[in-house]
Amino acid sequence: MSIMNIRKIVKENNLEELFNAVKIGIEKEGQRVLESGDISKTGHPKTFGIRQKHPYIQTDFAESQIELITSPENSEKNVLRYLAAIHEVVLKNLPTNEFIWPLSIPVKLPNEEDIKVAQFEDKWDVEYREYLVKKYGKYKQMVSGIHYNFQLSDNLMKSIADIENKDIVDVKNNIYMKLARQFIRYQWLLVYLYGASPLVEDKYYYNSNDKPKNYVRSIRMSRFGYVNDEDIVVSYNSLEEYIDNIVSYVETGKLIAEKEFYSSVRFRGEDTVKKFLNNGIKYIEFRLFDLNPYAPFGILEKDIRFIHLFIKTLVWIDEKDSVKSVEIGKEYSEKIALAHPLSKPEYLEEGLELLDNMKEMVKELKLSETDLILIEEKENELIDSTLTIGGRLVRDYKSSSPLEVGMKLAKEYKKQAMEKCYSLKAFENMELSTQALIEDAIRNGIKVDIIDENDQFIRLEWNNQVEYVKNGNMTSRDSYISPLIMENKIVTKKILAEQGFRVPKGYEVSTLDDAIMVFNYVKNKPIVIKPKSTNFGLGITIFKYGIDNIETYSEAINLALKEDKDVIIEEFIEGTEYRFFVIEGKTKAVLLRVPANVIGDGVHTIEELVEIKNNSPLRGDAKKTPLKKLELGEIEQLQLKEQGLTIHTVLKKGQVANLRENSNISTGGDSIDMTNEVHSSYKKLAVKIADAVLAKVCGVDLIIPDIKSEVDNNNYGVIEANFNPMMMMHIYPYEGKSRRLSLDILRMLFPDKNII
Amino acid sequence: MSIMNIRKIVKENNLEELFNAVKIGIEKEGQRVLESGDISKTGHPKTFGIRQKHPYIQTDFAESQIELITSPENSEKNVLRYLAAIHEVVLKNLPTNEFIWPLSIPVKLPNEEDIKVAQFEDKWDVEYREYLVKKYGKYKQMVSGIHYNFQLSDNLMKSIADIENKDIVDVKNNIYMKLARQFIRYQWLLVYLYGASPLVEDKYYYNSNDKPKNYVRSIRMSRFGYVNDEDIVVSYNSLEEYIDNIVSYVETGKLIAEKEFYSSVRFRGEDTVKKFLNNGIKYIEFRLFDLNPYAPFGILEKDIRFIHLFIKTLVWIDEKDSVKSVEIGKEYSEKIALAHPLSKPEYLEEGLELLDNMKEMVKELKLSETDLILIEEKENELIDSTLTIGGRLVRDYKSSSPLEVGMKLAKEYKKQAMEKCYSLKAFENMELSTQALIEDAIRNGIKVDIIDENDQFIRLEWNNQVEYVKNGNMTSRDSYISPLIMENKIVTKKILAEQGFRVPKGYEVSTLDDAIMVFNYVKNKPIVIKPKSTNFGLGITIFKYGIDNIETYSEAINLALKEDKDVIIEEFIEGTEYRFFVIEGKTKAVLLRVPANVIGDGVHTIEELVEIKNNSPLRGDAKKTPLKKLELGEIEQLQLKEQGLTIHTVLKKGQVANLRENSNISTGGDSIDMTNEVHSSYKKLAVKIADAVLAKVCGVDLIIPDIKSEVDNNNYGVIEANFNPMMMMHIYPYEGKSRRLSLDILRMLFPDKNII
Repeated sequence: MSIMNIRKIVKENNLEELFNAVKIGIEKEGQRVLESGDISKTGHPKTFGIRQKHPYIQTDFAESQIELITSPENSEKNVLRYLAAIHEVVLKNLPTNEFIWPLSIPVKLPNEEDIKVAQFEDKWDVEYREYLVKKYGKYKQMVSGIHYNFQLSDNLMKSIADIENKDIVDVKNNIYMKLARQFIRYQWLLVYLYGASPLVEDKYYYNSNDKPKNYVRSIRMSRFGYVNDEDIVVSYNSLEEYIDNIVSYVETGKLIAEKEFYSSVRFRGEDTVKKFLNNGIKYIEFRLFDLNPYAPFGILEKDIRFIHLFIKTLVWIDEKDSVKSVEIGKEYSEKIALAHPLSKPEYLEEGLELLDNMKEMVKELKLSETDLILIEEKENELIDSTLTIGGRLVRDYKSSSPLEVGMKLAKEYKKQAMEKCYSLKAFENMELSTQALIEDAIRNGIKVDIIDENDQFIRLEWNNQVEYVKNGNMTSRDSYISPLIMENKIVTKKILAEQGFRVPKGYEVSTLDDAIMVFNYVKNKPIVIKPKSTNFGLGITIFKYGIDNIETYSEAINLALKEDKDVIIEEFIEGTEYRFFVIEGKTKAVLLRVPANVIGDGVHTIEELVEIKNNSPLRGDAKKTPLKKLELGEIEQLQLKEQGLTIHTVLKKGQVANLRENSNISTGGDSIDMTNEVHSSYKKLAVKIADAVLAKVCGVDLIIPDIKSEVDNNNYGVIEANFNPMMMMHIYPYEGKSRRLSLDILRMLFPDKNII
Repeated sequence: MSIMNIRKIVKENNLEELFNAVKIGIEKEGQRVLESGDISKTGHPKTFGIRQKHPYIQTDFAESQIELITSPENSEKNVLRYLAAIHEVVLKNLPTNEFIWPLSIPVKLPNEEDIKVAQFEDKWDVEYREYLVKKYGKYKQMVSGIHYNFQLSDNLMKSIADIENKDIVDVKNNIYMKLARQFIRYQWLLVYLYGASPLVEDKYYYNSNDKPKNYVRSIRMSRFGYVNDEDIVVSYNSLEEYIDNIVSYVETGKLIAEKEFYSSVRFRGEDTVKKFLNNGIKYIEFRLFDLNPYAPFGILEKDIRFIHLFIKTLVWIDEKDSVKSVEIGKEYSEKIALAHPLSKPEYLEEGLELLDNMKEMVKELKLSETDLILIEEKENELIDSTLTIGGRLVRDYKSSSPLEVGMKLAKEYKKQAMEKCYSLKAFENMELSTQALIEDAIRNGIKVDIIDENDQFIRLEWNNQVEYVKNGNMTSRDSYISPLIMENKIVTKKILAEQGFRVPKGYEVSTLDDAIMVFNYVKNKPIVIKPKSTNFGLGITIFKYGIDNIETYSEAINLALKEDKDVIIEEFIEGTEYRFFVIEGKTKAVLLRVPANVIGDGVHTIEELVEIKNNSPLRGDAKKTPLKKLELGEIEQLQLKEQGLTIHTVLKKGQVANLRENSNISTGGDSIDMTNEVHSSYKKLAVKIADAVLAKVCGVDLIIPDIKSEVDNNNYGVIEANFNPMMMMHIYPYEGKSRRLSLDILRMLFPDKNII
């Protein structure tokens, strides 16, 4: 099939949107190292589960070489987001003394016999690695890099096939073959820009004679990298020739398997190259990129974007000489790789021309100004090699040793990951509970898709089982009717009372007149007046010792009527309120919420104590943090006044000053885990209550006078059963043990998987 | 055990609320008759399912004698409500020429051989009736009445037992024995007030010598009613004696079973009287009451209340002479029953004294003024017999024949039931779909409880299976996540598109600036702009032929942004929108919605045509009616203007004037059933779409250019998948066949039951 003019087809048929709808995925290897820079000798952390089929966290050649994988994403932002999230999950779960080496080549190579091949569960995976060891030695396999997976839209391919009246498989193979040749032809430019493996210990070369004598741009991308023997030559002239070559190398034993063919370009989507003829190439893997040590995750978002534009330009422009492309390209690339990082590029003019082509394409596709600025930035790097990553690196090596440079960055990146332990930073604009769930899912090898970020709507997938989750714990495991029961306090109460649970007696009214009609029934009894539906404690008044003044009573009714059209007047049961978190028939956590308070130390004023307490990283807006910062507003100061205190009072050591009456976390309350303290009979009671409202996930609020004694019919009261109960206050309590409920949610959703 | 002073205990221990918390249930028999007044010879209607275990609709002695049963309710209002609802269900489902005779005794008795004993499925039930025929003759068993079931609160019994330090079973039996004696003692007053069986055909008496010669108050409650032989005498002195007497009559064969003991009072709650000794009497059945022909359902709410107060007074006051109570009471009652309805009562003073006692109790219990007025009303009736039901009846018999009086009322009650066919009037403040579900459940013998009326929350129960339903079709059958998927259009679309359904392409924006950024992508293409979440069609703009004016585009965006913070700009797919109603993997109904319109007749103006169309009983506010009344407001008049019409235009015959652009039922649109018209492949498609969003109950909106052709990938578009889809527009469409979806919901909920 003759070469198609993609540019012309796209422009003439308004296919710009489809041409821009690419999918990108990143695979990033990295060595686990100790603070000394030595490669870690520990096994792949068990907390990441089984590495085979893990969608995000695997190992490559060596046991110490962790490989992070993103799924194909439709934007650079999303690719980096997943890469960042997976990194963070890995770094949070490494042993304290381990880091990820931020460069492609470790500065300290272990003795060859100390290098441990990745301990895959599958025998063949291990044997394959042993074979590679014999053929290439172990050192080369210490080298890490980034693989960039790229796919053009299937709908684009389909449209082109329709327009050109061609078979879609031919169209795909035609375009991807062209892209492969073009990429090899011009990859020197990427080696120039992104080469970042300037040095390696001598023993790496064994007894080679022509090893580089100075810093180079990329040992990894030179002939000293992980490359095939020189006699392995595969043609890119046509897919047929390409397949023939590879198949025959495997047949004659020159390659043990197709995957032993190491090229900067590899066609993907089938388990054997032969199948491309019938099914078409699905996507291309570009294996060219050294780790960028200045990027916390090995590559910057803007470079993912630049490479995307670079690749697309290669499809966009015409090929100059398709037959010689590969030969020329390899020669150029090798020369650039082995040149000093601060040297001028030999092919400057060609590079500038290509960048011009990129800019032209960006304009023709009406892409953004940012893209043009990005390309100009690379133009500058092309002209001034000190601006390249390699250039920057060797400049840094002048003031610090390569070990120091690498470890400083490695430590910095780990520190960043460990900050705000309760958050998964790549997803930090989502709710904390969803962040926790995503973090646990990524670590356990459950695939995560964000369906609607603003709505906290995600999809989890494992072993062909798909589960949707909203707000961290709203799932298919619960029935539609159960949250509707819990949403309506009247309904909940009626059902619980009928089933014999002790529910505070109450009346529902919708007008002040109705409320006054029942005043005689509730007069002088301990009561609470509250809106029928409320989630934030608004409009609630408690008369702990009863009320006989009808005007005060009426005020409370009106306050509640402001929040909802229906109001509940309810028996107030003495005791302390605890939250029981039930998941699938088990109480997983019990929490006490204490009103906002400070405790004196005999030195500081209340104002100062508040500031000290607010310094905790757990405190913030109680949305992006597990707890709320204390405030000293009108309500708090009134509360202090009632205790004979002001914000300037210096409390005695141990003296408690309450800042609030209510114990909501959202008004600065403390959360205290009591799971082990509460009598087991209450945990069983909470489960029965959840069962009664048909709930799998349920936050049961019980009033209990004494949590140590066994439950009977008179020593508790059910306040509420909550659907979508908050998880973070249990996961990061102010005091007591963390209860990682997000893991329990995963266990509920994937009972066949061993969630760690 | 000595007699307790309930009044004293209640007052001293503040048990008033518990004493008032009684449960009341009604059983009401009635004969199905033809317009001629003859007893119907048809079988018990099959539409009511199996009569045994039917909680609401059974038959009593004769096949024509339908028995309506309410569950025990905690207020007179609720009792009457269920009684009304069951009546309505029965009347709606009787053959057109059948009515329910509103009096206890039919005016026309059939020949004895034509009376058909109720055809129960259970052989013993039929045999028992055959035995009764032999012993008592068939005629007596044509008589119908009301049984009034009464239960004091268990918590009251428990409190009294605690206070008196007695066993709760003894307390119950003690109180209910006293009540039984007292009731018999004073029942004459109720016979006086409620007696309403003044006459019967002669053949009823066979060859009796002392048959009444004139109208009497109650043949049914006299010795000519359904009573045991004179030698059956059961003592009420103690529960032990009572049990001994009954058991020995059964053992000696004088009674075939315990239930053959006919008394105005019967203890209930166990299958044999012996068990009361250990378990306690649960409640009492009072079998005294004639049907009140002037009450559409056989008894008025105020009389349910009066009888409640009467019964409670009997518990409240002391017994005068417990040993002679039964004997005196029977004598008084018989005399009152066989007296002329217009005669003065023999025991006026005693009656007035009892009513005074009632008033005193009402005051002591702080009950309402209405209760006092009600008692005074009965005082007046006691003094003036013309005011009693019996008195009113014989006065009516002066101007019309008993047949005319009865049939007029029977017809009136049936007419009332048939009005507003789409509504179940007793529950008409609930949503229509819930009314339909309740109606179908009652008819099919599924027990219905209203859990929260304002929230459309009901409970259904059959064969120990409990199901909660909100808003007519929100049930446990759907999962929690499914409506959350559908609620969010972005999520729905993403999931449907991923699974290969044709979903209009679109963009989500949250600001006008965002919207302007994508303007280039959508310019000149057919698009619809709509808020992300809307259920009422607000804020939606359609540019059918595209838009190139950015200002008009911006206006539409702003309009949508008023309704939701997120707005969708979406490809507009040409065709007509249909609603597919899917229940559990089947498309049960397909509906076309047509914008509000009138069709000309060459005579009337548009204004007149609107009035004519609005006369349909189906049209109203579209909440309490299936369709909305047409309006001629600003929007409608503008719409007419665009068609060159005014409200004064006389349309040609067949000429259509649209009053609206949108087709929502809520703005007067017509609903047209298309279930049989649409190609079956679309029905399957709708099911697959419901499956994709994990829904059991789902309203799928599809755009289809031609419903007759088979579906392919290009001839449809999915607009939306709706949770809690409206059912009434399918049940009562403007045009086409009714699809009773409420029945399908019941079938889904109770797959083991044969729903008719």
